[in-house]
Amino acid sequence: MRMNEMVTPAPQGLKRLGRLLKAPEFFVTRESMQMSRDDRRDFMRKAFLAAGGAAGALAPIASASAQAAPEGDPNILKLPEHSTGLGAPVASTGYGSPSKYEANLQRRESPGLTRVGAASVSFAPLQGFFGIITPSGLHFERHHQGWWDIDPTKHRFMINGLVKQPKVYTMDDLMRMPAVSRIHFIECGANTGMEWGNVAVPTVQYTHGMISCCEFTGVPLKWLLDDCGADWKRGKFVLAEGADGSSMTRTINIENVMDDVLVAWGMNGEMLRPENGYPLRLVVPGVQGVSWVKYLRRVELGDKPYGTKDEVLHYVDLMPDGTHRQYTSIQEVKSVITSPSGGQVLVDKGYFNVTGLAWSGRGKIRRVDVSFDGGKNWKQARLETPVLDKCLTRFNIDWTWDGRDAILMSRATDSTGHVQPSVSQLRAVRGTRSIYHNNKIQSWLVKANGEVSNVQVG
Amino acid sequence: MRMNEMVTPAPQGLKRLGRLLKAPEFFVTRESMQMSRDDRRDFMRKAFLAAGGAAGALAPIASASAQAAPEGDPNILKLPEHSTGLGAPVASTGYGSPSKYEANLQRRESPGLTRVGAASVSFAPLQGFFGIITPSGLHFERHHQGWWDIDPTKHRFMINGLVKQPKVYTMDDLMRMPAVSRIHFIECGANTGMEWGNVAVPTVQYTHGMISCCEFTGVPLKWLLDDCGADWKRGKFVLAEGADGSSMTRTINIENVMDDVLVAWGMNGEMLRPENGYPLRLVVPGVQGVSWVKYLRRVELGDKPYGTKDEVLHYVDLMPDGTHRQYTSIQEVKSVITSPSGGQVLVDKGYFNVTGLAWSGRGKIRRVDVSFDGGKNWKQARLETPVLDKCLTRFNIDWTWDGRDAILMSRATDSTGHVQPSVSQLRAVRGTRSIYHNNKIQSWLVKANGEVSNVQVG
Repeated sequence: MRMNEMVTPAPQGLKRLGRLLKAPEFFVTRESMQMSRDDRRDFMRKAFLAAGGAAGALAPIASASAQAAPEGDPNILKLPEHSTGLGAPVASTGYGSPSKYEANLQRRESPGLTRVGAASVSFAPLQGFFGIITPSGLHFERHHQGWWDIDPTKHRFMINGLVKQPKVYTMDDLMRMPAVSRIHFIECGANTGMEWGNVAVPTVQYTHGMISCCEFTGVPLKWLLDDCGADWKRGKFVLAEGADGSSMTRTINIENVMDDVLVAWGMNGEMLRPENGYPLRLVVPGVQGVSWVKYLRRVELGDKPYGTKDEVLHYVDLMPDGTHRQYTSIQEVKSVITSPSGGQVLVDKGYFNVTGLAWSGRGKIRRVDVSFDGGKNWKQARLETPVLDKCLTRFNIDWTWDGRDAILMSRATDSTGHVQPSVSQLRAVRGTRSIYHNNKIQSWLVKANGEVSNVQVG
Repeated sequence: MRMNEMVTPAPQGLKRLGRLLKAPEFFVTRESMQMSRDDRRDFMRKAFLAAGGAAGALAPIASASAQAAPEGDPNILKLPEHSTGLGAPVASTGYGSPSKYEANLQRRESPGLTRVGAASVSFAPLQGFFGIITPSGLHFERHHQGWWDIDPTKHRFMINGLVKQPKVYTMDDLMRMPAVSRIHFIECGANTGMEWGNVAVPTVQYTHGMISCCEFTGVPLKWLLDDCGADWKRGKFVLAEGADGSSMTRTINIENVMDDVLVAWGMNGEMLRPENGYPLRLVVPGVQGVSWVKYLRRVELGDKPYGTKDEVLHYVDLMPDGTHRQYTSIQEVKSVITSPSGGQVLVDKGYFNVTGLAWSGRGKIRRVDVSFDGGKNWKQARLETPVLDKCLTRFNIDWTWDGRDAILMSRATDSTGHVQPSVSQLRAVRGTRSIYHNNKIQSWLVKANGEVSNVQVG
């Protein structure tokens, strides 16, 4: 993936992606609230009138009586059908879906990012997410040779290498083993990769949308390796291999394996989705997504890094001196404000709940600071609970916009003391020609006309 | 809902609901594993042969070379299409769905439970769930007059009663307010209601499936009441009212409001599903589901309980002396083993990972003990993390079945010291004629032939 392949025009309608499209008043101000409160008082007065003027009684939000007033009386608010009719029965949707009014919130491919959609990315719509759990239907996708819906009764998982007894497991074998469940983020190493240059991708979906966060269930890989009689003295690395046509292969450090790597089948309470590796994937908390091998068919225990195509040619960091850093797989401390964010429009000045996500591949989020003036002043944001290891953390902070140009930034600090770097701090070490592992502080410019855009500041 | 309406025949195929239907070998034994390991060794030998006999080399799970062996050679395992072909492109599913192989895992109505499906229940398939997060597409449903997909731009939410300034909010007004996100369970007060009699409902989906657990996002109700100038001296209760035709109304204690009640729009990272109250519902952690009013349109602050139809006629507990207990809304400490559970079949003796869920409306789960002999001996189960307030907690415990009749039970203890009661302890206080608030210890009988069924023990 070359940099100029990543510079793509914004898809039609991108400027108002997300919640704003269907709810243009999402950002209203104190003034407009005050105005609409006047409207509301009038509305309520009418509602009370319709209820017989019984102010102080239990006034329904709209109480219409056919006898009380003639058809068309402006003081009578017609009750909506859902307040009078019989709704749909239970279990009538089969497997449930979002409201039809949410149809715009979709994962989206960046057209032209890669040559074929089977070796591409779809970005998760972070601007419309709440909390930390990613809905499985909106989990980002990254395929190297397309996705499959593999028959789990035919899938096999092999462990070999430095073990006494190589074994092949069926899904049934695995799923009867002692399982653990953990909530973790997964982030593609190339997330925010377009920001290495001076390319300002327009929306948070496209800058940071290669991240998701789910509850995963599976058996710890170390238990499976024990089951095969692992040679823990010689075994220092494992190779993970996928069953899809790309034969994705990645080296995983034994320290990760001993810590928290899972051979997982469960995601957000149910089986993995086909796009995310059904029926089996590796979960490598804190490590870039490419190592979370999908359609997992084999793990080999070895005594050295494997130097596979996907870690020697790809997912390496090009340094200013022209060398490549390999095996830089940990996703360092990072955060982003998801609302307001690029492409959204603030309709007027006043109060806003500014919200975003923070994470670190090294541990928990300790704090998030937010600046509304391009990094001059910082205020500490509220963190929602639970705050978990190698997991997204939702932050919220109050902001009253005075209507002038403003630059919004968030800066996360993790439990190891790592602080998210500014663009210039990151570039001083890493240069500008990388693709992967960009955890710089993200800046959103709010212009006086309310438009929000991506800028490189700090 | 009368008790005899709740005694319904098992739907066709119920005995083998869930994972067993599509994965008949889910419960295999050490013996059968040993046998299949022999098969596997043979399989691997063939794989190694096909790879050129290079034992010890990096043997793919099935390495076929067209040149190495003629078509039809039994030593050659044909690679599946997904290992050679080009899969589907990203973003090709739209909003994602589970694998076609998971189509059997559905929420299900108990036919005949109520007279119309619009005033009924669909049960969540707990036997197939992992971890604590309920997939939104499988969240249980309980409607009193059917479900609706309400246009959020037209929905209004009013606060009135003992407040200085009654207000009507749009969804946009609410969603710009300071939000919090929390993971909580929601359980219908009637969950496990059929167990009050000597009715043994066959599966855990039907005994305990009126529970789900999601991450909710919304604005604390106390902040909204403050926004309206609540009279906190006189205001001791709130009334919550839904916009659907049932006009669901429930009284909520002010202590709950001050603690953690939310006016919520977010569920598992996205907007609420239509079946679960889109675009707005009340979240009342620890309290029975009926109080989590869906399609929330009004909250009134008052100085006494409201005595509405849904809390005077329904959701009351019939005591042995013939009186009714009202306003018993907290869901007490409870747990259930979800696998193995009724309707599943253990194909042979040997090792099993026994797993289940525990929860308490009063706080966190402190411990779960499991018995494999009908309550004579108890062992402490492993709790998965995070263990959260008023939230499901997943437990796991090892079991080696000797092939004889066994009775499996789980007993939860919460952070306040409450211990889940046995059937006889609960009946000694509550009698047998209630519908709601049954938190007895659940027992599953495993017969020597492997069949698991629901029994009342202890």
